[in-house]
Amino acid sequence: MSQQAHSEHLLEQLRWQRESNVLCDITVVVGDTLFRAHRNVLAAFSGFFSALPDRGHRVTTLNPEFVSEQALDTLLKYIYTGELHTDRSVHNYTGVYKANLAIGVETLFTKSKGV
Amino acid sequence: MSQQAHSEHLLEQLRWQRESNVLCDITVVVGDTLFRAHRNVLAAFSGFFSALPDRGHRVTTLNPEFVSEQALDTLLKYIYTGELHTDRSVHNYTGVYKANLAIGVETLFTKSKGV
Repeated sequence: MSQQAHSEHLLEQLRWQRESNVLCDITVVVGDTLFRAHRNVLAAFSGFFSALPDRGHRVTTLNPEFVSEQALDTLLKYIYTGELHTDRSVHNYTGVYKANLAIGVETLFTKSKGV
Repeated sequence: MSQQAHSEHLLEQLRWQRESNVLCDITVVVGDTLFRAHRNVLAAFSGFFSALPDRGHRVTTLNPEFVSEQALDTLLKYIYTGELHTDRSVHNYTGVYKANLAIGVETLFTKSKGV
């Protein structure tokens, strides 16, 4: 297996784990919606999540005024796939951009595919 | 950032986290040596670690008769880099092969670079 295939295998497996709620160790709450994920994966991309203390923070609540449910869903899917899917409407794009000011995924708006 | 660069970034960040003991949630003990790592990363590659129950198992002790410290170190480095470094001596190679019968990294001896 090449190194490229190795890292793609890792991303694919972590995506499967998240979809299956396997070894998820953080719940992100926005409004009435709970998002399960892996802290180390979020911290690998997000300034906000990498700044959380190592211990605790198993539940993190975000202000829906800054991070909508739809925008967080889009950001998490980006983190776990490398693909950004927005419908390109101003509302949707602005929501993701605004959410990312809080979440701080540095790689997202720098030569992302799909933007 | 391309999808390839995205998954490589993830692997690199998780490797940095492991080297810095950030968000590590499992300790693997072989003899007197403790190895810290992330369970979701190990489970992404290893049949043994993916078979551990989701809860608990923060410390896992391996029998050094089957998994030597050196072999586990080599396997963990492979998981976190995609590169297999052995000195190609029969002893070293056999040790890693034997350890992998216990750990079950399926991708290791199938077209691995460096073998």
